[in-house]
Amino acid sequence: MYSKQVQKVLDKFKIEVGDRIQIIKDKTPFEGIMMPRIEMGDLDSIVLKLDNGYNIGIKFEKRMKINKIKKEWLIIKKKIEPSKKLIFDKKLSTISMVGTGGTIASKIDYRTGGVYASFSPDDIVIQIPELKKIANIKASEIMKINSEDMQPNNWLEIANATAKEINSGVKGIVITHGTDTLHYTSAALSFMLKNLPVPVALVGAQRSSDRGSSDTVMNVACAANFVVNSNVAEVCTVMHGTMGDDYCLAIRGTKSRKMHTSRRDAFRPINELPIAKIFWKDRHIEITNDDYRRRNDKKVVVDDKIETKVALIKVYPGLDPEIFDYYLKKNYRGFVVEGTGLGHVNTFGEKSLLSSIEKIIESEISVVMTSQCIYGRVHPFVYHPLRVLSGKGVIYAGDMLPETAYVKLMWVLGHTKNLDEIKEMMLTNYAGEITNRIIPNTFLV
Amino acid sequence: MYSKQVQKVLDKFKIEVGDRIQIIKDKTPFEGIMMPRIEMGDLDSIVLKLDNGYNIGIKFEKRMKINKIKKEWLIIKKKIEPSKKLIFDKKLSTISMVGTGGTIASKIDYRTGGVYASFSPDDIVIQIPELKKIANIKASEIMKINSEDMQPNNWLEIANATAKEINSGVKGIVITHGTDTLHYTSAALSFMLKNLPVPVALVGAQRSSDRGSSDTVMNVACAANFVVNSNVAEVCTVMHGTMGDDYCLAIRGTKSRKMHTSRRDAFRPINELPIAKIFWKDRHIEITNDDYRRRNDKKVVVDDKIETKVALIKVYPGLDPEIFDYYLKKNYRGFVVEGTGLGHVNTFGEKSLLSSIEKIIESEISVVMTSQCIYGRVHPFVYHPLRVLSGKGVIYAGDMLPETAYVKLMWVLGHTKNLDEIKEMMLTNYAGEITNRIIPNTFLV
Repeated sequence: MYSKQVQKVLDKFKIEVGDRIQIIKDKTPFEGIMMPRIEMGDLDSIVLKLDNGYNIGIKFEKRMKINKIKKEWLIIKKKIEPSKKLIFDKKLSTISMVGTGGTIASKIDYRTGGVYASFSPDDIVIQIPELKKIANIKASEIMKINSEDMQPNNWLEIANATAKEINSGVKGIVITHGTDTLHYTSAALSFMLKNLPVPVALVGAQRSSDRGSSDTVMNVACAANFVVNSNVAEVCTVMHGTMGDDYCLAIRGTKSRKMHTSRRDAFRPINELPIAKIFWKDRHIEITNDDYRRRNDKKVVVDDKIETKVALIKVYPGLDPEIFDYYLKKNYRGFVVEGTGLGHVNTFGEKSLLSSIEKIIESEISVVMTSQCIYGRVHPFVYHPLRVLSGKGVIYAGDMLPETAYVKLMWVLGHTKNLDEIKEMMLTNYAGEITNRIIPNTFLV
Repeated sequence: MYSKQVQKVLDKFKIEVGDRIQIIKDKTPFEGIMMPRIEMGDLDSIVLKLDNGYNIGIKFEKRMKINKIKKEWLIIKKKIEPSKKLIFDKKLSTISMVGTGGTIASKIDYRTGGVYASFSPDDIVIQIPELKKIANIKASEIMKINSEDMQPNNWLEIANATAKEINSGVKGIVITHGTDTLHYTSAALSFMLKNLPVPVALVGAQRSSDRGSSDTVMNVACAANFVVNSNVAEVCTVMHGTMGDDYCLAIRGTKSRKMHTSRRDAFRPINELPIAKIFWKDRHIEITNDDYRRRNDKKVVVDDKIETKVALIKVYPGLDPEIFDYYLKKNYRGFVVEGTGLGHVNTFGEKSLLSSIEKIIESEISVVMTSQCIYGRVHPFVYHPLRVLSGKGVIYAGDMLPETAYVKLMWVLGHTKNLDEIKEMMLTNYAGEITNRIIPNTFLV
């Protein structure tokens, strides 16, 4: 609820949450959809969802001008029967869309004009009419969470909902998701969805105030095309491949990383080629990496046992070694270290991490080494103090991304607490997370 | 000291530390320089420094064959008088080389054959004869530390040694340094060396078993050329620009990052163009970014007051909010957060970081937001819970690298503990660390 003085003005102009309004303050006009006040927010600030997808709060002042706007497309909206069923096209395959929240969902919201828009097939197809030519759409929104707020238990929910849809017999799955932690979720699903028979595409929208919502439409259309028409039975992220609207990239879920805060082509393959380019206009799918799992007749099995007491620690000059002791005392069961360079940490002087890491390994807790360089692979020198630690030492995770190693260690620890078994599982390639050969032309592409 | 049984064999073959030897074990030959046993190491493992710069430990076995090798270049080495002074060439400028350790130093070591080689002008020029055509060299080794072991107090030592050399009137400074944390040190020197009148080039060598030490020679030659013949009075990293041996890049010290564990062209400019390309063969210097500080007549001043109680925390799904409380209880004075996407953290549910961050800001401790995407810039949404926190909120560090923001916050806290002043200093551009406009063609290059 807004404050009494704000509510009085809203009542006067018959403005309700979900209406499109214009506010003029200090000669600057703001136009957008009226939103409910957010929980932590100021009672006196009106929240608007702008057309670029951002929410802004505008502090109420008496001299402000507020107008309710009726736009043609808003009137059109009112003609839509939200419960009306789309005509089922027998010539097309059926896919499932699973909604989890994020910018991509909010953009669909504001374009239909409804703040609480349902994630129904109708709503989606109204936004992205070309979907009607690609597939019949089943849709369900299983949560509405911004991706920065996603937690490991959400991964389990998404995995189970996805598996249920797959086993209902659809041709493929599109999961809409916020972009911030899309690559953590894609890694989690890669490990949790065993015997995957069909493609699973995780798709999001980058915030791009210049181009409005255009990446939502293209990303979702390409993702749908990919899960219907490709043979790739893997979990992939599907996002813009370039800043233009030419094609999306399908990148293996364990090798994808958000490498830019705002560009639409932020998701890049690390140490690997993308699996496919999915062209938007002509819907051509070009396989760029033939090393993928094919469609098959298996039933997907959800293997979602995880241990969440895992810490991801980036090392840097001056890091206090006691941070390891802190987590150990809190009964953490696993550590992923983002070392420097080839997988180093300070092993010299007052702030040496050596004895803290030694203590962890002596407690039969695993330490996995990755690199903060992001590209390349860690390399255990035969004589490095970390390698020789306790005879068991640190598990060097090859070219695995730190984020993927973190998710994988949680998943591995859900299956065993035995150090040797952990090491064996961490170094087993379950979902393309480890590449043993060096693939040319995969640095900074 | 090695074990008695190993020492017996070494004595028999008259092998001493520093000798070149060959060990044949299980039919595999290993050749390199005999090293002293390392502190943590096995008494029975002989340590060899291979020609690619790696140290390996070979477990002693009775059936092993060990040969002492006399190579021609080792005999040549013996003819060099280490104390002999190079002839001073009046036509050339004089530069200082400051040695700090790392692969680059160890490579110079093994090539001269001496494990304890001095970092003398002679040693350097023997390795890189073309230096004689570029400049007269003054050289001093101020420490011998692998860069993963570098600590903030080492930055102060390097800054002071560098300033002393500059004020002795040389044309420029080349600092040799391990690559792992080269970019942390380059950021630190960028803030600490005020009124810089001449170029300062930080140069390292990547481990590259395929090409041996070739990147040492080219990197040092390009760095020397850059500090003699360019007009750029900034702290830069100078490393290979491509995998070939065509040119090095001079990258501003606050915008450089090691982006690959092993490639020679691992150091890349983030959100910015490199300042110059330095071609090796013809020694041409091509300025690629004209926005730099010029040579001048000022005296450099060392501004090395820092507060080391700063934590760099990467957030991820599942991060325990109590980590912030832990550092706060340990009287940390500053926090740099590597948020997701545009600078987000979990602000929802059981593991919300909101109240922990609120507590920090209420304690008048600063929180600086950066992004783990690495490329791009953070963006504070007007209505984001973090932004509105306590009216003061979180300092959004624009397009600053997390590593640079970490070093800068230490330096800023050395000057003030007042929250408003910290914010003002963090958002002031002292050394090119913040770029306010978006520069095209700086993503993944």
